Amino acid sequence: MRKIAILGVGQTKVDEQWEKSLREIGGEAAFAAMQDAGVDKVDSLFVGNMLSPLISGQNQLGTFFADWVGLWHQEAVKIEAACGSGAAAFRAGLMAVASGDIESALVIGVEKMTDKAGHDITAALSTAADADYEVEQGISFVGINALVMRRYMHEFGWKHADFAPFSINAHANAMHNPYARLHEKISIEKFERSSMIATPINLLDASPVGDGAAAVVIVPAERVASLKGKPRVTVAGSASSTDTIAVHSRKDPLFLSAAYQSSKRAYEMAGLKPEDIDVFELHDAFSIMSALSLEASGFAEHGQGVRLGLDDEINPKGRIPVCTRGGLKARGHPVGATGIYQIVEVVQQLRGECGHTQVEGAQIGMTQNIGGSGATILTHIFNVE
Amino acid sequence: MRKIAILGVGQTKVDEQWEKSLREIGGEAAFAAMQDAGVDKVDSLFVGNMLSPLISGQNQLGTFFADWVGLWHQEAVKIEAACGSGAAAFRAGLMAVASGDIESALVIGVEKMTDKAGHDITAALSTAADADYEVEQGISFVGINALVMRRYMHEFGWKHADFAPFSINAHANAMHNPYARLHEKISIEKFERSSMIATPINLLDASPVGDGAAAVVIVPAERVASLKGKPRVTVAGSASSTDTIAVHSRKDPLFLSAAYQSSKRAYEMAGLKPEDIDVFELHDAFSIMSALSLEASGFAEHGQGVRLGLDDEINPKGRIPVCTRGGLKARGHPVGATGIYQIVEVVQQLRGECGHTQVEGAQIGMTQNIGGSGATILTHIFNVE
Repeated sequence: MRKIAILGVGQTKVDEQWEKSLREIGGEAAFAAMQDAGVDKVDSLFVGNMLSPLISGQNQLGTFFADWVGLWHQEAVKIEAACGSGAAAFRAGLMAVASGDIESALVIGVEKMTDKAGHDITAALSTAADADYEVEQGISFVGINALVMRRYMHEFGWKHADFAPFSINAHANAMHNPYARLHEKISIEKFERSSMIATPINLLDASPVGDGAAAVVIVPAERVASLKGKPRVTVAGSASSTDTIAVHSRKDPLFLSAAYQSSKRAYEMAGLKPEDIDVFELHDAFSIMSALSLEASGFAEHGQGVRLGLDDEINPKGRIPVCTRGGLKARGHPVGATGIYQIVEVVQQLRGECGHTQVEGAQIGMTQNIGGSGATILTHIFNVE
Repeated sequence: MRKIAILGVGQTKVDEQWEKSLREIGGEAAFAAMQDAGVDKVDSLFVGNMLSPLISGQNQLGTFFADWVGLWHQEAVKIEAACGSGAAAFRAGLMAVASGDIESALVIGVEKMTDKAGHDITAALSTAADADYEVEQGISFVGINALVMRRYMHEFGWKHADFAPFSINAHANAMHNPYARLHEKISIEKFERSSMIATPINLLDASPVGDGAAAVVIVPAERVASLKGKPRVTVAGSASSTDTIAVHSRKDPLFLSAAYQSSKRAYEMAGLKPEDIDVFELHDAFSIMSALSLEASGFAEHGQGVRLGLDDEINPKGRIPVCTRGGLKARGHPVGATGIYQIVEVVQQLRGECGHTQVEGAQIGMTQNIGGSGATILTHIFNVE
């Protein structure tokens, strides 16, 4: 497989963007990435999106955006893997360029969610779960995660406040990210007083949805051997894995086996180990997912992920910095776009562009994007040369 | 790009399959393809589907089917390009195996449409068009195609009955395909008496939707150097192209520029010309699309595609046989599955398994799958060795 480099990145602020259409939001990120890459044309377009058929009545987003950003006659397609759609689109673009059949790809992750009422969004998000065996029972997506979190607390003896460091870190880091949805520092007291959504998940355990888009331009690495000035970021590892779609079908609902498998394959491809990772943009849709992701990816023992937060190891100066730009929790979670936001953020870290939340000397970054309740998990590793 | 072979194919009958779930329909085709391939495991799964979020409340179909067919921990993803989803999923799988990162892929095209009322299906299908600038005006998908057909008749002086040979040929061929939705021979008289849907498109110009799934297993060609007994079918050309999403944005709404571009690239990749193609499974969602597809792919002059039907050149013994298993018109059009049905049918032709509608000595076959009103078009060329 030939080596791939990230030539440019772009993003919009995650927000309620009622004044902008789906087209405009995705286009804004795409143009930013192409400008950053210094190109006005690419061979192909891969779009990660989950909800546009349900929220915007629009399918065929590949061609929809190719048309909007002026890539007529180029190849274009949409990829969907629930909240893992962004990274899945990135991997599809990666495979296409790696195959040698095409020479460049623009990958957009885009989601416009807030035009609908809350109950409509909750219903739309439930399509990530098993329609026949989970959703038919009346459970929502946050409800499924609440069952998992409750079991984890019971099994390993953690209390609710032990999850607070994940949210506090994410909110603190987002203060320095102009693209983040929430700019609001939180404390342990605020975390404990927050409204309950689905016990034991409260408002500050959960990530806010939002409208937003992020984009990257990728090319074969040999094409950017001498990027003047800017450090060259390349893809060192890429893997996707799956688990059962329904949580109740798993032997151990507290083990993200698809995270274990995809991170294992990505480490192997990169020739690296967990201790080599300088920064890790994980999928903290709910605080419990931060713990499970850290455990399955080799950063903590089973049941001990929360300890990394309690030991102050997850901030930008810690042993394994996570959510350095705010994570899903505070940057926001425009579901199909999230996987690309994570990649954009890791590229910013490896380029040394993160100011107050810069991980000093970051050379190797990892992203992990999750679709459903751990059903589809993609892990990517990037390095800077 | 390394050469890819089709190791196995499978399909279900296109029908109203109310007694079977989405899972069961897709699984049936997948198991049939794996059995035909003689494998019980593959590295990855690519699913083409357009409507499951809207009709079945189910997203994340990649992982959904990986779980159902027992491919836990394998990579899986869904691809959507409206009615071009099937071929787009095939091409994504092709790129992934061609990249060298994975060694085999199962590609499923699946659609369950008939659980909903007709107006719901019409609304769901309209998501293939431009939501802001076409659908907002109240036009349906058949309405858009009717405008194109009317313009074509006006521009080139054809009358409605001139399109009849496309439908008559498709229905005649479907008589010999047990998987076809319609087994009903039609005549020119019946064609002319058929109910009008959206003038000038009548019921026999339009393809019926349906529930159905088709699947293929692909591997690097070197892995099947000596397939005992069965001829080896390989991919000679693959290309995807796009046009504006709205028909009114095109310079010439009667020219499928994305068909022209994708067939041109596929011919170049294969080192072939239109006259080398022995059988062509085209996308006859409406009879007008057969004409436009033949023209843009180099088989007829602009405005003269219908002449191939009138001159009796499109039947299995003609110069360019199309819809040899019934096409969308009579095999049926389970939208996201259609692109894979076309590939399965061409493989059957190249293997010489088509009985009464076998194209004698067929060595090279082509498929063309269209998403939206000519917005996304994928062309694939296959040969047998």
